[in-house]
Amino acid sequence: MVELDFEKMGGLIPAIVQDDASGDVLMLAYMNAAAFQATLNTGHATFYSRSRNELWVKGKTSGHLQIVKDVYFDCDQDAILVRVDQIGGAACHTGYRSCFYRKIDNDGVHIMGSPVFDPREVYKSND
Amino acid sequence: MVELDFEKMGGLIPAIVQDDASGDVLMLAYMNAAAFQATLNTGHATFYSRSRNELWVKGKTSGHLQIVKDVYFDCDQDAILVRVDQIGGAACHTGYRSCFYRKIDNDGVHIMGSPVFDPREVYKSND
Repeated sequence: MVELDFEKMGGLIPAIVQDDASGDVLMLAYMNAAAFQATLNTGHATFYSRSRNELWVKGKTSGHLQIVKDVYFDCDQDAILVRVDQIGGAACHTGYRSCFYRKIDNDGVHIMGSPVFDPREVYKSND
Repeated sequence: MVELDFEKMGGLIPAIVQDDASGDVLMLAYMNAAAFQATLNTGHATFYSRSRNELWVKGKTSGHLQIVKDVYFDCDQDAILVRVDQIGGAACHTGYRSCFYRKIDNDGVHIMGSPVFDPREVYKSND
């Protein structure tokens, strides 16, 4: 098994989540070693919440799970790419499909697209 | 102008680089505020090298610059997505198109694809 470099960031490694069908980048979150193993073992993208200090099965509250298709790691073994099927069509707790729904250039900030769902109807708590 | 959260990670923010044409995720690197501004101002993806402790214009040595098409930031304002045209066809210093050229599953590690170039012929130093 590969040795990922969790030490560079104090036990965490950044994980990019990409929609397997569209190629859209949905979000970036962090995994510790337990979250990485849970992702491989369960097939549901699992992260470590830096704000709640606990393992976080993405979509456990909302039902918007991320079904793992493939997991890649990078040349330095300090970043992960997870390709997923996004249940419910949106990854962001704001209701947008991708967390990266705002574009920035020298003219300012531009919101791209529209929310897929109303977060007040989907979440009991933020996941 | 948007206030990105550089403080959460001691002055750095993770930046995902995605090929604008194919949608392939090419690499993950880090920007400080100066690298972010340079990226917007010059149109060349610019990072902060954690190993060399300096600004790093991706491809400056190899000629494999990343021409910025669009820059996005995420809901928490603590991650960036840069869509680029990858000059030279490969982002990884190993010669692979993407730094994420290794897939992992419960069977082990699988190398995907082949190097696009021979790094010994392209690099004087690693960028």
